[in-house]
Order: sequence, then C-alpha cells, then structure tokens
Amino acid sequence: MSAMNAFYAQSGGVTAVINASACGVIETARKHKNRIANVYAGRNGIIGALTEDMIDTNRESARTIAALRHTPGGAFGSARFKLKSLAENRAEYERLVEVFRAHNIGYFFYNGGNDSMDTAHKVSQISKRMGFPVACIGIPKTVDNDLPVTDNCPGFGSVAKYVAVSTLEAALDVASMSKTSTKVFILEVMGRHAGWIAAAGGLAGSAPRDAPHIILFPEIPFRKAAFLKRVGECVRKYDYCVIVVSEGAQYANGQFLAEAGTRDAFGHAQLGGVAAVVASMVRDKLGFKYHYAVADYLQRSARHIASATDVKQAYAVGKAAVLMALEGKSGVMPVIKRVSEQPYRWRIDVAPLTRIANKEKMLPRRYISKDGFAITPACRRYLAPLIRGEDYPPYINGLPDYVTLKGVPVRKRLGTKFMV
Amino acid sequence: MSAMNAFYAQSGGVTAVINASACGVIETARKHKNRIANVYAGRNGIIGALTEDMIDTNRESARTIAALRHTPGGAFGSARFKLKSLAENRAEYERLVEVFRAHNIGYFFYNGGNDSMDTAHKVSQISKRMGFPVACIGIPKTVDNDLPVTDNCPGFGSVAKYVAVSTLEAALDVASMSKTSTKVFILEVMGRHAGWIAAAGGLAGSAPRDAPHIILFPEIPFRKAAFLKRVGECVRKYDYCVIVVSEGAQYANGQFLAEAGTRDAFGHAQLGGVAAVVASMVRDKLGFKYHYAVADYLQRSARHIASATDVKQAYAVGKAAVLMALEGKSGVMPVIKRVSEQPYRWRIDVAPLTRIANKEKMLPRRYISKDGFAITPACRRYLAPLIRGEDYPPYINGLPDYVTLKGVPVRKRLGTKFMV
Repeated sequence: MSAMNAFYAQSGGVTAVINASACGVIETARKHKNRIANVYAGRNGIIGALTEDMIDTNRESARTIAALRHTPGGAFGSARFKLKSLAENRAEYERLVEVFRAHNIGYFFYNGGNDSMDTAHKVSQISKRMGFPVACIGIPKTVDNDLPVTDNCPGFGSVAKYVAVSTLEAALDVASMSKTSTKVFILEVMGRHAGWIAAAGGLAGSAPRDAPHIILFPEIPFRKAAFLKRVGECVRKYDYCVIVVSEGAQYANGQFLAEAGTRDAFGHAQLGGVAAVVASMVRDKLGFKYHYAVADYLQRSARHIASATDVKQAYAVGKAAVLMALEGKSGVMPVIKRVSEQPYRWRIDVAPLTRIANKEKMLPRRYISKDGFAITPACRRYLAPLIRGEDYPPYINGLPDYVTLKGVPVRKRLGTKFMV
Repeated sequence: MSAMNAFYAQSGGVTAVINASACGVIETARKHKNRIANVYAGRNGIIGALTEDMIDTNRESARTIAALRHTPGGAFGSARFKLKSLAENRAEYERLVEVFRAHNIGYFFYNGGNDSMDTAHKVSQISKRMGFPVACIGIPKTVDNDLPVTDNCPGFGSVAKYVAVSTLEAALDVASMSKTSTKVFILEVMGRHAGWIAAAGGLAGSAPRDAPHIILFPEIPFRKAAFLKRVGECVRKYDYCVIVVSEGAQYANGQFLAEAGTRDAFGHAQLGGVAAVVASMVRDKLGFKYHYAVADYLQRSARHIASATDVKQAYAVGKAAVLMALEGKSGVMPVIKRVSEQPYRWRIDVAPLTRIANKEKMLPRRYISKDGFAITPACRRYLAPLIRGEDYPPYINGLPDYVTLKGVPVRKRLGTKFMV
C-alpha cells in the first residue's frame, strides 16, 4: 500500500491545547512516512479544504512542530463553519472529496466539537459512495467539556485550571480588602449550555467559608431572590462573597441573563455581559461595593497555566487518531476513559462518531449541590485530576516563547474556485 | 538599647507580591531579635493599629512566613483608609502613637502607595512631638507604578507580566479565528490615572502587525473617529484587531469613557466598564464581531504568573526597610534604582517620604508613540526587564499552595475603643 497524504483541520473555538493535538497528529504521522507522506493542514479549518488552501506541514521543522505542544490558539487557523446537511448542500461534501482526491488525501483528522464530529462522519460516508474512501477520524476538542462518551475533553482541563486558580487568587485579594472596599466579586466564565467551566471554579475552595461562595450554573434556573439572599448571607458571615457565573446562566424560561442579541455562524446567541448584569442586581438590591472580571478569551488561551493532564491528553488523542487511521478505522474518535480515580489513571478508547455527533453532555444534577449554588463532592472527585500538574511553556525575556508557523501553502491542483 | 517591637501594615489595593514585602520585613526582623522583639501586623491595615487589633507574627512559623513570598493578596488584610490631615483629625494620629507606645512599638513599616507615604511621614513627625519617636519607613507598593523617585514599584512588574502574557495569548486565539469569527478583541486593564499597565500590554508584540494593535492610555485624550479609523485599518490589513484599554481612558474634557452612558442594542444603559463601551462603538460604527475581557482583580492577584524581578524587588524593599530602621533612619522609603539597562541591574536606594507623598508619576509622553496608540522603543526598554523571570508558587493537586495565617491577635493593652 503506497503512502497517501493526510488532512488535518481545527474547528470551532480554539483552546490552550488544541495545538498539542496537532503536534500529536503530525509527530505520529512523521513516524509513519511509509503510510502518511505528508500532513496537509487546512488554513482556517475546513475552509482551507473547500478552497484548496492548505498548509504544507512538511515544510515546518521538527522543532516548530514540537513547539506546537506549548502554543495556544489554533496555529493553522480554525473556523466557525458548519457544513450544511447533505440534503441542503451536497456540493460542499463533494468538493471536500474532490480536493482530497486531487491531493491524494486518504486520512481526514478533524479536531473539534460535536458539530465537527457530524461533519467527519458525513465525509466518511460520502467519500465511500464517491469511490474515494477517506479514513475520517475525529479528535475531541472543546473547552466546554460537553462531548458525550469521552470522560472529558482536551481543552477543558486547562480552562478549568485557569478558572480555579483565578478564583482562588481573586478571592484572596477580595478577602484582604473587604473591610473597607469590595464585598462582592463576580467572575464570568464560559460555558454556553453546560456548567462544566463554572463548576471548575468550585475547586478553588472546599469549606463553606472558602470562595467561591456561589456558582451560577446554566443548568440551574436563576432565581434572583434566592441568589440575592445568599449573597447577603455570605457578606454577613464572611464579610465578602465571591461568585462564579457561567455566561450561560439563565432564567427558568430559558432566557439568558445577558443576551447580546447577535448570533454566530451556527445560529447560537452571542453572549457577554452576565457579570455586569449580576453586579447590577447586587448593587441595586444590596448596595454592596462590587467588582467583576470577564475572563473571556483569556481563559481558553491561557497556555501559561495549562493543566499538565490536559496537555498530555490533548497530545494523546492526536497521536491515537493517527494510529487508528493506520489500523484502518474510520468514522471514529479517540476518547478518554477514566480507568481509576484514586490514583487517577486514564487510557485512550475508541468511539463511533455517530455516538458523539451533535450531542451535548450537560453537567449532571448530582454534580450540583441541592441548593444549586455549589459543586458536590462527586463533582470535585471528577474535576480534580483534570487540572493536575503544571506544564509551563518556555520563556524568553519574560514572555512565553510561542511558535508561529511558516505556513507554506500546498500547491493547488484543482485551482477551481469554491465559494464558502 | 533594648529591643522594641515593630508594626507593619498593608495599605490600599493589594498586589501579587505585597506579601513578599511582608516576608522581607518579618524575615529580616527575625534576624535582629536583639533590636526588634516582634513584628505586630495591622489586621486590615492601619485600622488594626487604630483599633488595637494586631496580629502577632511571632506566632507564625518560619515556614508560614516564607510562604508569604509566594502568596498573593494581603495576608494581614489591607484597607482603603486614608488618615485625614492633622488639622482635620489629629486624634487619629495621636491614637496611633498611643497604641505604639502601649505596645512598645519603635518601628512603623507602612506598605502602600503615595497616600500611605503621607501618613507615614506625619506619624514620624507627630510621634517625635509626642515624645515617643517612632522610626517610620515606607515600603513601596502599587500595581499602578505611579510612585515618584523609585524607578518602578513592586507590584507593577507582575501585573505587567500578566497583561503582556494575556494579550499575547488572547491575540493568538483571535488571530486563529478571525476568518469566520471575532475580528476585534478588547482587554480592559487597570490604571485609573496612569497608563503604565496599559503600556505593558505593548510588550506582547513588537512589529506593527503584532498585537496589540491599539493601546488606549489615560494620558492621551480619546478621539473616537481616529480610534475607529485605526480599528478599521487593522482589520483590513491583518484581519483582526487587538486593543488594550486602560480603565482610565478618557475624553479631552476629562470624562472617563466608562462613564459615558452608552446604550446597548436594546436601548438599555450599558453596564460595566470601558471595554464594553469601546466594544459597542466598534459594533455600532464598524459592525465587526467583537469580544472583550475585563481582567479586573485577576491581573493584580495573579501570583501564578508573577515576574521574578518583581518578587525579588518586593522582598528587597521589605528587607531594606527594616535595615534602614535599624540604622536609625526615619521618614524614608527604600526605592529601586536602575543601575544599568542592558544587562538590567538595580539596587536599593533611599528617598525621603516627603518626595513621595501624594505625588503621582504619569507615563511620560515620550513613552507613547506620536499617534498615541502604541508604546515607543524607550518605553519598551524601560518595561521589558520588569516582567523578566518566572517565580512559580508551589502547587498541590493542581492549585497553588497559598498560605493562610493563624492570625493570633496581640493582647490589647489599652482596650479603649476607637471608632474609625
């Protein structure tokens, strides 16, 4: 069997460790040159395949590829671009297979969330029907930790560590000033539908008096009166109150506390500003001095405080994806299986994309305390190992030494235009 | 000369390294037990002296005191409490001296900004007049870097490093998604009057295409049209635009942008800070998809990414303060003197409090580019060494192992009530 090329693309919101998965893919492929001649990477994700704009990773040095392991963001460019259904836009899928055929691409590694797993699954099917079967392997990535089957998602452990550390640090700041200054501090974190990231804030403390004193999960309908009552109690008891709020926090009717009114390419509402909304409630009803932080992209790009567990797992799923492809698998995704909790041990397992595609894993109710404002010991046991270990990037002159690719384009073979 | 006690207090907004100064004070005092029997620390800053509520640091182990070096926030409690002028409230100053006399306190170490240096200076004078002369030594601390005389302030280097690293990381995130997602990212940082912290964001890049593309300083009057023009140019040239904005950004008439009272898409008054205001300008006039982060307390408590230079200097000024007191000095503050720039070398010098008290050091105009949106090479040379080196705290189970004091109170000797 002669060597074919592989295509790798990053999809959706990037993470602190998605490039570690890319590193795992490329380094592993390079060990199997007899089977995978080159890894082409989509410039700006799947758009790069549709427009035949691919990066020749063979033109990147071993040193550069190794440095991807400690570089946040999406080094090849990612895209919020969801292929429509087959019925709606068959042309996009056919174009993909055309480009793959023109570049002798026999392996498709798609690094993304559940939307992307749907795409990878469809490409797997249609490529077969078009007589150019491509091994399609999903590689899990999402800070939201909302993929099913896998015990956790690469990308989540690092944002969880960032949120836990930031909550701990800000709480020390607030506690030391509460006598004469800020009483209420609010940290807004990501997690549109699932409260995993907000839950991670709960790792900052374990006793009732420890921050965070209140977590607002998307899974628990927001009740203003109960919330304000709790804030008041905390300030009376501890002299201050630290709140972690998910951007997806919502009322019982499903309305987000803060809805910006705009929508992204997937039709999701663009959120932002829930911390300010919560702060104004505290100000209006309780009159406490408050401050709030909005972590936004800082949380998902904070490679400087990445979880070593997360980095290892991100690399491992990239590596496993290549090995699965070489074993002849297609339509699957490597998943992380928790083998034991204490000590924490995990291994890579395999799951069909159909079990992942378009499904969301919410924070289970048993991970949230009865009153809805905290995490349970079970949740803590689940989360704790995922933030464990530090994996610092190298520094030069006080700044992380992140790598930039040369990004040499692969010569076009079709040259035909395709509008996305 | 028999040993006397010392009093140490933290004042104003805390930093990632103010406890490193406390560590320097206490460890150095412990080496001179023949002169300094004990260091009493004010619980909640100077309020602890006024209310005779002091922490007995001799009850804290050497290990705990050493751990202050890597613990953010104010371990003894700080206060936003400025003593009034002597004319207005002589009673407060007299009370301080009374408490000092009752507890045989011959040394007063006040760790704060320019307000605190004013207080320390006054206590030095009045204690002499009251026949109980106390050696009053200021210890510089402020994230704002706005103290005069000293080359830089402990606390600033770490927030500068946090802002530079965060800007770099978020920019990689935005760059990788800009094809289909966010075009404009805004990071709001502290610095109400001086643009030092905003300037530090400029360290994230050096070429024109590098982020941040725009810095909004309090020192440069905000001109909306010029700003929006520049944002548009950046997006056209680089496909994205990263902006670092100081919370103190203001119009030519001195009005803060954050107070400008803009409205969101629904006609609601815009909540929150300057980042949201700037974001809404970008949305309304340019229509680009945007995101913003508000670093707030995260930036000044981020001990996990502290500058090693900053930690060393924070410790050094604490140590020097004790040594100065033991040399018989009073009414002075240890300052940092830059001896050479390349290689960066510094030493501790001494300055009278009268030269520090109530004065602010603004970012000089020559540190800001002609167009007002960037830092100059001179500014870069000044800032670069201050963020150099990493000084990671120890971790346990994925979280920094920050210390909490026992905080055993010193037995009251006066017992009289004093209302603050």
